[in-house]
Amino acid sequence: MWKTGITKLEQDKILIHGYSLVELMGSCSFGDVVLLMATGKMPYLHQGKLMEAILVSCCDQGPLPPSTNATRFVASCGVPLQAAVAAGILGFGEYHGGAIESCARILQESVSSVKHESAEEVAAQIITEFSDKKKRIPGFGHAYADVDPRAVKLLDLARKMIAPHPHIDLLVATEKKLQNDKGPRLAANINGAVAAVISDLDIDWRMGKGIFIISRSLGLIMHALEEMKLGKPYKKLSMEAVEYIGPEEREVPMRLEPS
Amino acid sequence: MWKTGITKLEQDKILIHGYSLVELMGSCSFGDVVLLMATGKMPYLHQGKLMEAILVSCCDQGPLPPSTNATRFVASCGVPLQAAVAAGILGFGEYHGGAIESCARILQESVSSVKHESAEEVAAQIITEFSDKKKRIPGFGHAYADVDPRAVKLLDLARKMIAPHPHIDLLVATEKKLQNDKGPRLAANINGAVAAVISDLDIDWRMGKGIFIISRSLGLIMHALEEMKLGKPYKKLSMEAVEYIGPEEREVPMRLEPS
Amino acid sequence: MWKTGITKLEQDKILIHGYSLVELMGSCSFGDVVLLMATGKMPYLHQGKLMEAILVSCCDQGPLPPSTNATRFVASCGVPLQAAVAAGILGFGEYHGGAIESCARILQESVSSVKHESAEEVAAQIITEFSDKKKRIPGFGHAYADVDPRAVKLLDLARKMIAPHPHIDLLVATEKKLQNDKGPRLAANINGAVAAVISDLDIDWRMGKGIFIISRSLGLIMHALEEMKLGKPYKKLSMEAVEYIGPEEREVPMRLEPS
Amino acid sequence: MWKTGITKLEQDKILIHGYSLVELMGSCSFGDVVLLMATGKMPYLHQGKLMEAILVSCCDQGPLPPSTNATRFVASCGVPLQAAVAAGILGFGEYHGGAIESCARILQESVSSVKHESAEEVAAQIITEFSDKKKRIPGFGHAYADVDPRAVKLLDLARKMIAPHPHIDLLVATEKKLQNDKGPRLAANINGAVAAVISDLDIDWRMGKGIFIISRSLGLIMHALEEMKLGKPYKKLSMEAVEYIGPEEREVPMRLEPS
Repeated sequence: MWKTGITKLEQDKILIHGYSLVELMGSCSFGDVVLLMATGKMPYLHQGKLMEAILVSCCDQGPLPPSTNATRFVASCGVPLQAAVAAGILGFGEYHGGAIESCARILQESVSSVKHESAEEVAAQIITEFSDKKKRIPGFGHAYADVDPRAVKLLDLARKMIAPHPHIDLLVATEKKLQNDKGPRLAANINGAVAAVISDLDIDWRMGKGIFIISRSLGLIMHALEEMKLGKPYKKLSMEAVEYIGPEEREVPMRLEPS
Repeated sequence: MWKTGITKLEQDKILIHGYSLVELMGSCSFGDVVLLMATGKMPYLHQGKLMEAILVSCCDQGPLPPSTNATRFVASCGVPLQAAVAAGILGFGEYHGGAIESCARILQESVSSVKHESAEEVAAQIITEFSDKKKRIPGFGHAYADVDPRAVKLLDLARKMIAPHPHIDLLVATEKKLQNDKGPRLAANINGAVAAVISDLDIDWRMGKGIFIISRSLGLIMHALEEMKLGKPYKKLSMEAVEYIGPEEREVPMRLEPS
Repeated sequence: MWKTGITKLEQDKILIHGYSLVELMGSCSFGDVVLLMATGKMPYLHQGKLMEAILVSCCDQGPLPPSTNATRFVASCGVPLQAAVAAGILGFGEYHGGAIESCARILQESVSSVKHESAEEVAAQIITEFSDKKKRIPGFGHAYADVDPRAVKLLDLARKMIAPHPHIDLLVATEKKLQNDKGPRLAANINGAVAAVISDLDIDWRMGKGIFIISRSLGLIMHALEEMKLGKPYKKLSMEAVEYIGPEEREVPMRLEPS
Repeated sequence: MWKTGITKLEQDKILIHGYSLVELMGSCSFGDVVLLMATGKMPYLHQGKLMEAILVSCCDQGPLPPSTNATRFVASCGVPLQAAVAAGILGFGEYHGGAIESCARILQESVSSVKHESAEEVAAQIITEFSDKKKRIPGFGHAYADVDPRAVKLLDLARKMIAPHPHIDLLVATEKKLQNDKGPRLAANINGAVAAVISDLDIDWRMGKGIFIISRSLGLIMHALEEMKLGKPYKKLSMEAVEYIGPEEREVPMRLEPS
């Protein structure tokens, strides 16, 4: 039925990419195992630590994002925890968490050009390409402020821990040019920073959203449990929260065949 | 892998409980096929019409219910339609749509007693039983008003279309006693009416929520498409919508082993 | 919070596109209300009947499709019905049910050209366009046989019920040319037929998948309930169902910093 | 709209239980933050390490479990990653991952009795209670073998890292008596071990399934990505995988009103 190279199940043993799961317990952090699964290789200690910092960075953002609202509304309905959490995860789409994979894809597809041109030149090409399509580059810009302090911290940690880091260099070159051209609001945000760091950790861009799912599932779980504990069953909006823009009352006509 | 008695797939033919799907098309309404699937028997014409009225009765309730909110929030995130609809369906729990199956179960488990006692006596026993457990009987009471006009209409249609209708009789006897004892707000609501009518249509109570899922999926789909068309990407609450009740800012301590 | 033109909720009344839900009950079929919601207009009787035939046509296909498998596996885990059904609905993606919206989009975007050219010429352009991109046209071809009898029946019903039907004409012209060019296996399938018929019913292509969700949710519900009743808890594959293609057992190395 | 004590969002700052998220990055592991969120308290270093071992222990079990099948089937349908992962998470029900919360609940509700009686006496009471209800105690017994090596390893790590550990003691007393009474197959499994260890880490039993969701989401993500990369679109069972037990072909009758 399935071909798989992830996990081998034997009578009494589970092997993850060839390593005994029982031996990984205690000798590897969860971040190490995320990296092992994502790359197929046992990571160095500092790489695992960096992955842990990534998992911490996205773990919650309070009750404002749409996914958290989906989770809390569903949690109010008398359902098991996994249903409320799944409802929130379903919102990790193109506009919510999806910027990690899109930005990582751009960086990974462009970084090889940096061998022949400077990071600044490649960054300029990326910006021109998106400008021409009148699209925003994913991973830059933050709704609340000029900088996203999570991005600053993660890039800072990463530069101390891993070298070389060509994807971070390309991200930063893009950030500088964007800010020069269009103003300070276009600093790299946490999505962009995660995209660059996982790329420098050799993780395929398709896994970008996966890392967000693991991290943010923690926040969704806590919001679901809190709503189940403190909230009222069947959370309902009040009528004032809705603006009706459809037709006014009309009579149901006699149902006819067309003449 | 699977044992199934629902649908037989042959080279060129799909049989639903033995009937050719192609022949059902055009000769049966969708309500007929819901009944065929739920009971294994080809329904009479009026039974199918009643099922259609049930499917109409629950198809939408505007954007206030929690499931609709889950769907619209997820729909704002750049996801395909099925993901937004699934998020809403996940909210059809004990407190949202779940009253149909709970009420149908009570009616189906109690109705045989009506042979030996009057419907009024059996209703009194049901009420006492829930009173003793300090629980509300599912299927009665409506947030907005004394009567749920959908329930009135459905019970009215059903009494004209099917006879005998012992589950409806038991529901109405329970409603009368509840209203006598505790006031008009405890009239049968649409969940209770659907529960009674599907029971008189020979449908197992476990299917009660299934009927709600089919019907309300229509509303969820329309809300998702409307939000995708009219709404902004990444629908976000404003900060005022949240009351924070946790600890104030504190310093991250030196991380230590316990002494 | 939400702007909506679908349903107006008043103190004691639910209006669907301006029509009282209570009055729709009994006077409209569920197919009528699907059409009302999808187009904003009260349909003619025969249009509602055609929609019912569409809803019947996709309601189940046995336990072979991936969505049904997802539903049955989840149903074996001790979860409420809505969770198992949602898991299956999540599989209604580009390769499963998604062909309805893709094919309807092609037909709707091409049909206006038929005013200036013949349906045959427009069909030839569509085929060339997909040929050039080396893509299959969605809505044509059937895994099991030369014709999909559901498609034949639905198109037959529709041609008797509605006129004119330019989208059906364009579908059939495309089918003829495809079969001429590439052989009989490329007849219009049920997805293509539904796409053409909903287009001739004035339904936007974005709703194509929605109609599939409503219809097939019936099948998923029945499969979930059957598995909950007959199946064993925690349905598990046997080890023979899996082919392992990953690395063999290896020792967990001493974890090091890079030198 | 929501009351929350989890995360405070300020203009430029995210506080998790009062701690700046940016400061947690790099100074706390992901396991630390899981503990912080679950208990409201900053954990000791060794507690965070134990949580990491728990997260590693449940991260994958190969493609046999029902949740993994749901994820891989949905992943074959042309959907975004989050939809495939959510489908699998929906299977974390009573029979799949749910034993952690059920077992943790038993341990947490019984452990205070250990002050007055020995762990052995309390264990005997638990066993008698379940015996009387003819139910299996969740957290014990393993399909494949006499011991679950993951449980042995986790309990071993925990006993070295935390003291006292009354929930582990109670689990082990229960295991001993169960094995004495009914044979070696009833050793504590990984669910039971996680239940005991999180209880000794002061985590409420309601969070038990949450920890499983976080951990196993890693495995589901990898299986989804692998299926998207290596598998065929629209994964379908062969007809031999299905045993049909329903009625044979029959004619659709003339549809009638009852006489």
